[in-house]
Amino acid sequence: MAPDYGRIQDDALQILDALCRCGSVSAEGRELDETAALVQELLNEAGFETKQLRADEGPAAVWGEQRGRSDYTLLLYNHYDVQPVDPLELWDSPPFEPTVRDEKLFARGSADNKAELAVRLAVLRALREANDGELPIGIRWIVEGEEEVGSPNFEQIVERNVDLLRADGCLWEGASAVLPDGRPEFGLGFKGALFVRLHIRALATDAHSALAAVAPSAAWRLVEALASLRAPDGTVAIEGFYDRVLEPTAAERAALASSSKSEAAEVLDVLGLEEFVDGLTGDALLERLCYSPTANIAGLASGYSGPGVKTVLPAEAAAGMDFRLVPHQRPREIFELLRAHLERHGFGDVEVTLLDAADPATTPLDDPFVARVVAVAEAVTGATASIVPIAAATLPIIAPLQRLVGVPGLAAPDNPVYSGSLAHAPNEHIRLADVEPAIRFTHALFQDLATAR
Amino acid sequence: MAPDYGRIQDDALQILDALCRCGSVSAEGRELDETAALVQELLNEAGFETKQLRADEGPAAVWGEQRGRSDYTLLLYNHYDVQPVDPLELWDSPPFEPTVRDEKLFARGSADNKAELAVRLAVLRALREANDGELPIGIRWIVEGEEEVGSPNFEQIVERNVDLLRADGCLWEGASAVLPDGRPEFGLGFKGALFVRLHIRALATDAHSALAAVAPSAAWRLVEALASLRAPDGTVAIEGFYDRVLEPTAAERAALASSSKSEAAEVLDVLGLEEFVDGLTGDALLERLCYSPTANIAGLASGYSGPGVKTVLPAEAAAGMDFRLVPHQRPREIFELLRAHLERHGFGDVEVTLLDAADPATTPLDDPFVARVVAVAEAVTGATASIVPIAAATLPIIAPLQRLVGVPGLAAPDNPVYSGSLAHAPNEHIRLADVEPAIRFTHALFQDLATAR
Repeated sequence: MAPDYGRIQDDALQILDALCRCGSVSAEGRELDETAALVQELLNEAGFETKQLRADEGPAAVWGEQRGRSDYTLLLYNHYDVQPVDPLELWDSPPFEPTVRDEKLFARGSADNKAELAVRLAVLRALREANDGELPIGIRWIVEGEEEVGSPNFEQIVERNVDLLRADGCLWEGASAVLPDGRPEFGLGFKGALFVRLHIRALATDAHSALAAVAPSAAWRLVEALASLRAPDGTVAIEGFYDRVLEPTAAERAALASSSKSEAAEVLDVLGLEEFVDGLTGDALLERLCYSPTANIAGLASGYSGPGVKTVLPAEAAAGMDFRLVPHQRPREIFELLRAHLERHGFGDVEVTLLDAADPATTPLDDPFVARVVAVAEAVTGATASIVPIAAATLPIIAPLQRLVGVPGLAAPDNPVYSGSLAHAPNEHIRLADVEPAIRFTHALFQDLATAR
Repeated sequence: MAPDYGRIQDDALQILDALCRCGSVSAEGRELDETAALVQELLNEAGFETKQLRADEGPAAVWGEQRGRSDYTLLLYNHYDVQPVDPLELWDSPPFEPTVRDEKLFARGSADNKAELAVRLAVLRALREANDGELPIGIRWIVEGEEEVGSPNFEQIVERNVDLLRADGCLWEGASAVLPDGRPEFGLGFKGALFVRLHIRALATDAHSALAAVAPSAAWRLVEALASLRAPDGTVAIEGFYDRVLEPTAAERAALASSSKSEAAEVLDVLGLEEFVDGLTGDALLERLCYSPTANIAGLASGYSGPGVKTVLPAEAAAGMDFRLVPHQRPREIFELLRAHLERHGFGDVEVTLLDAADPATTPLDDPFVARVVAVAEAVTGATASIVPIAAATLPIIAPLQRLVGVPGLAAPDNPVYSGSLAHAPNEHIRLADVEPAIRFTHALFQDLATAR
């Protein structure tokens, strides 16, 4: 008997509604315990044995386990926390009152990442019901509460619970169920990231700018230190920065070349650009995006930046930077290269602080788990999957899962989101039309993996 | 009969008390009309014919005139407005309730510039009284209300009233009556200034920093544009910037060499510095301070500069800059050189806005007015005057007075302030011990000039 996808969708939307009524803003430490309790209750009701896992700090992660008919065990990762809602006045409906308009469901956290959690749970409930209360495969699930603040305690939670997380494969937070060109999307990895703060204090106190003739300037020092980090062609001038950077393999290039590029025009439009840097398009654009490490200035601050004039020689100046790193680059090593570069170029007075770091992590294209999951998606959709071997962004949870647990994983098209979902912005939403494709794929995958060993 | 300096001082402090009770904060448009009315009333009571002079915008300047026994006419400049009081919590007594503690009088505006106004007025009242209601010289006086916001309308007021301002000499806002080494201080000029804003918009909206690999960065563009303005040795790299800069003359060097350097150590201490740039001291330090034009970054702003991490590629970046200019440099010409430099170096996307400009202006060291006033100060104090031919700061009122009215002027030691007066800071004050020296000099000068023609 074919599954009743409509009923599963109704169930998923009901779960999603309940989850989205929780204002689980991790940056504000808001309603995290309550939301964790709701997730735990939902898992319990679906037949999971559950517990809360904790690090020394931070909210609990909810863990659940349920055996299946086959020995195959799949690990699922989700997060129950959401981004802050500011600016509230730009929302067309209250962010924690899920509202359907124009075939879309609006709520903070709907796209990131509660809809995927609801889809997975509704599919599991349907599979249990259709199989006399048993799942086709074993499921382990970890739902953390700090993804939106960089998962600072996730590694410790994993370290303490490696045995609870072992599995044959893992679904990370997922990719788009349906891309604009109708293809299902896969992501096999993420860049690493290094976040630093550069700070210079040149004077004990701000001075009158007339003194600029004879007193040192923190702002000029910062400008010159930053300028030394970048070559005229836009590449990073830190000595040794590219030493570990490898060209993509032929297989990676082929995957990238055959992946969907349907979103590039939309990104240009949103950013108000005629073209990307160096006029990049197509394969070359994607290769730069995914395989080039970056050095970005996220913020600059010094002195007076209000309207009009202030005659000030600022006492201090600061910059926030992030470096996106490709496989084999290590954030702590890059941090040391940065410090050495500044020292060598006469900027020893620039104080550099490491704010956060995440290793790059990828699952190889030729991992059997990848082939199996992709095959299911292509069979369900009748379309060729779009596979991005490494994404330009960073998901810090991947490296600990791979290094400590050793489980191959990927971002699969079980997530009813699209590039317009406004994940971190006002009016975050999902399109209702994306829910059923996510359910169909998830339903097929959970059944298919029962024969995977 | 010798003048009763104690009585004149009591009178000056009484006038000062009344003036300091007015919260005439020009930046906030506060109590300006009331303070102008009080100044006008004080001048009327002292025998002046007065009126209010206005530009198209801004508060009135108070003008007064009184003939003297001799034909000599001296123009006085003061301002009745004051700086804002923020941060109020750092004041030890309310800023608009003049309070005497430790032989100091604390009030916003006491040092800048109401005490000098009070000294001048008290001396004039004493001289009238001692001379049957007549002054030894003619006095014209202009007291404006926008000095603390850069005197944006002063030039128009001067333009419209040139005939009311003609005089044989002018006392600008004054210098310290008593320097730490006991000498009276003179200032013969000020650097010019050019205030600009550099702004770059690279994207229509802030983007996720993962896009830094392929999207342009406003922050990097700003850093690189700024870096191009400065040579490695700290000089300004704008082509043509130094073309009009002259070496100081032998006479100017000699004046500078014999001027007081007693404040350098104190400035180092306040700024928390071991030494000034390039290890400058003594004459070389003063020459750099007074005769080198500067390019200062007053502010930098881009993206996120709060605590922690934000993964943002900022859409825009901005810098506030001021250039202090020496005689013969012209701010509008420097503005065009800056624009041409940016264009030539590939930074045509940097938008440059002129915020404010003031010409440099000096009275020549060999002007007879200078010799006469200095001689009076040296006779009264028995000390050699400290004469700075050009100050590092900018007083925008000087250039219009010189160009339009053609009157030689200087900053004379009739001002009871010292380097610790905290002119623009909380707990602004004067030392009571500085009042009598200012009165003695002023009294002697006004009598001496009666024989000056």
